[in-house]
Amino acid sequence: MSDLNAVLDRIDKNLDESLDRLFALLRIQSISTDPAYKNYCREAAEFVASDLKSIGFAAELRDTEGHPIVVGKSSNGAASGASKSGAPHVLFYGHYDVQPVDPLELWTSPPFEPKIDTLPDGRKIIVARGACDDKGQAMTFIEACRAYKSVTGKLPLPITVMIEGEEECGSKHLFGFVRDNADEFKLDLALVCDTAMWDRNTPAITSSLRGLVYEEVRLTCADRDLHSGLFGGAAQNPIRVLSKILAALHDDNGRVAIPGFYDGVKDLPPNIKAELAALNLTAEQFLGQVGLKAPAGEKDRMLIEMITTRPTAEINGIVGGYIGEGAKTVLPAKAMAKVSFRLVGDQDPVKVRDAFRAFVKARLPVDCAVEFSNFSDARALQLAFDSPALTKTRDALKAEWGKTAVTVGAGGSIPIVGDFKSVLGMDSVMVGFALDDDRVHSPNEKFDLKSFHKGIRSWARILDALSA
Amino acid sequence: MSDLNAVLDRIDKNLDESLDRLFALLRIQSISTDPAYKNYCREAAEFVASDLKSIGFAAELRDTEGHPIVVGKSSNGAASGASKSGAPHVLFYGHYDVQPVDPLELWTSPPFEPKIDTLPDGRKIIVARGACDDKGQAMTFIEACRAYKSVTGKLPLPITVMIEGEEECGSKHLFGFVRDNADEFKLDLALVCDTAMWDRNTPAITSSLRGLVYEEVRLTCADRDLHSGLFGGAAQNPIRVLSKILAALHDDNGRVAIPGFYDGVKDLPPNIKAELAALNLTAEQFLGQVGLKAPAGEKDRMLIEMITTRPTAEINGIVGGYIGEGAKTVLPAKAMAKVSFRLVGDQDPVKVRDAFRAFVKARLPVDCAVEFSNFSDARALQLAFDSPALTKTRDALKAEWGKTAVTVGAGGSIPIVGDFKSVLGMDSVMVGFALDDDRVHSPNEKFDLKSFHKGIRSWARILDALSA
Repeated sequence: MSDLNAVLDRIDKNLDESLDRLFALLRIQSISTDPAYKNYCREAAEFVASDLKSIGFAAELRDTEGHPIVVGKSSNGAASGASKSGAPHVLFYGHYDVQPVDPLELWTSPPFEPKIDTLPDGRKIIVARGACDDKGQAMTFIEACRAYKSVTGKLPLPITVMIEGEEECGSKHLFGFVRDNADEFKLDLALVCDTAMWDRNTPAITSSLRGLVYEEVRLTCADRDLHSGLFGGAAQNPIRVLSKILAALHDDNGRVAIPGFYDGVKDLPPNIKAELAALNLTAEQFLGQVGLKAPAGEKDRMLIEMITTRPTAEINGIVGGYIGEGAKTVLPAKAMAKVSFRLVGDQDPVKVRDAFRAFVKARLPVDCAVEFSNFSDARALQLAFDSPALTKTRDALKAEWGKTAVTVGAGGSIPIVGDFKSVLGMDSVMVGFALDDDRVHSPNEKFDLKSFHKGIRSWARILDALSA
Repeated sequence: MSDLNAVLDRIDKNLDESLDRLFALLRIQSISTDPAYKNYCREAAEFVASDLKSIGFAAELRDTEGHPIVVGKSSNGAASGASKSGAPHVLFYGHYDVQPVDPLELWTSPPFEPKIDTLPDGRKIIVARGACDDKGQAMTFIEACRAYKSVTGKLPLPITVMIEGEEECGSKHLFGFVRDNADEFKLDLALVCDTAMWDRNTPAITSSLRGLVYEEVRLTCADRDLHSGLFGGAAQNPIRVLSKILAALHDDNGRVAIPGFYDGVKDLPPNIKAELAALNLTAEQFLGQVGLKAPAGEKDRMLIEMITTRPTAEINGIVGGYIGEGAKTVLPAKAMAKVSFRLVGDQDPVKVRDAFRAFVKARLPVDCAVEFSNFSDARALQLAFDSPALTKTRDALKAEWGKTAVTVGAGGSIPIVGDFKSVLGMDSVMVGFALDDDRVHSPNEKFDLKSFHKGIRSWARILDALSA
């Protein structure tokens, strides 16, 4: 029996003990956003550190102005860089904190008393706050390490574990911590377990995060609000100007019409595109859930591309003039819009921002002044499609699940992943086992027992693959 | 000496007595919007009725749910219709109520203690709340009647006077009063003294009021607000749809692009257009006062046309999505705009409203529903440019001021004038002597002594002309 098979075998046989450890962690009320739970957060951090120590990690709590960060280092990973075997040194990221439990009355069992339940369709589920997000997910990785250590006496590659306690309230102390300790955490690759499966049977790798440029544009025409009966037809109306600008943002094919906007956007490799096509994501599936029927993006793109791999321009807000009940014949002096751009590939956020501003300025008539504010200029993160880490992870997941893993781009983001790239120069591979019905952040949060079990097995396979 | 000359002579000689009567009225604190001043309002009404009786009118207070309306009828005007001489029976409209005086500390003399003051340029002015709006203006008419009566023993044509007490708080009981007594007030022509001169030396006749169609348009796409990171690029955005619609309202020449919008709009007669052109209203004069430079209306029209005789489309308000501080990556479910149209000539408000709605609906993509609300569908009022009343009034004003009166359209409105037309079928000629610097509704309201004096003389001439 190969090492890997022995490890998988042990994972299967010891699932109950793995669950016991997860349940012990789930019982700790580590709600990070509420100061009343501060001690529980430390207790959870100590539990994780202790758990890591039990499998040979040198683990400690690193204090911050907020909740402590657990850092554990495997004995074969004392120095950064490749280990003697040539395997990469990986940084695993997860978080031990959880969301508040309100409204408590909607829970069918106490949120910090984990239990195994059975759904009508026969699925076994772990029910508790944090069962999925992120205690259950983080423990899939740690349990995979435990099995390895127990079977082979060592880990297949050097591993540093970083489990933070403020992800649910903005990770605000983690950013400084990573910056201040960049040398310590500048490793070869980050692994993150906080994302979802494509569906119950199809694993997914999140290999990209779209960037975000977020602009506020404020137009001013007259020096005061005017009476539309007196000045209407003669005075410039900033809502009219703004409407014309916003209407010009997209052409008739749904493409963003700002010159240079698509610079740095590459087409997908044919194999990735074919995979996405094979998912056959329909408008009915994706848009039907929110009452819509037809994709509104670029006409020559698949829906799955629109939401994951293509850049976008969206108007997030607009206001001007009278917005109360009934009629007021005002011709307003000001109008404002918030416009954001999701970036992909090598799009340069500063160039996009400047191109947008130039686009607006080019459309301003006499008597209309503009001011801008920028609230985000984050570059997209994109793991190269031919990166060995991505290929190996895909192979490992296919071996476990019997289906090719979908390589997706995430619309939302895990904040620290951006810093891993920008501060540490390190790519991230995000693999998670959450399902759409896990009720993350809501009452009766759950994690499928299958997700937990096969999640552990998946990480064992991934670690094995990455070490080769 | 003709009757008219004798009347004018008497007006000049008795100006001090005219002022005394005006001052007595100005001392009454008839603030209509504040219930604390209810008795003062009645006192002002009684003063006006008594004043009318002193020159032979059968005058009385007509009670309403609000403040009373003063109605006075000349002895030669018992029945409606033309008098025996063939002269029209005119209805004169004004109001005895005034605006509140806050902020009191900005008045340089007590607002209800009228006085004559002298401006640095030598102009004599009457300073008091209501000096212009509308006690001073209304009294120009009554004093003209007094002079006639005193010189000739009668009025030159049958006159009914209607002086209301709620103009400054919406005239809300006058509408019902006019409807309920339509037979009584359905006379030949209404005369109104509540408007302004073109400038200090140029009289003006307001012969038209633009109509108003006011629509609210509400768009709904998804059944909830969405995360722009997840749905952006795929889900329809109602702000984007709304912007495209609003951007299409005007073509590149500033014309309203709604099919059929200009149906019923006639070009001005050449003489009226020439008169307007001769005023040479510059952008600097009109737009400079609010910090603007360039007319934003139809490119082939004079500024004076844009603001008085041409129809317009204005966006009065817009809102959708996130409008607070900073960034929120929402893709909103709804967006709303308020759009209004000023109408002229024979434009049909219902047709304009329907054409606008059709214009919007024709631009809705799949996944975007619309709802409309209408808050106004008032037709424009336009005294025919060749109407004898208008011609006679113009001649009379030219005789008094030595300059041709400007025939203007009013952007704003005097609410009851619409009802005079729609309920009573009666045209209105609006002549007033206010100046731009009269500080109407503001502290230190004033009325030029010249406006009062020549205003009385103007009405004497107009009554003489109309009776011929």
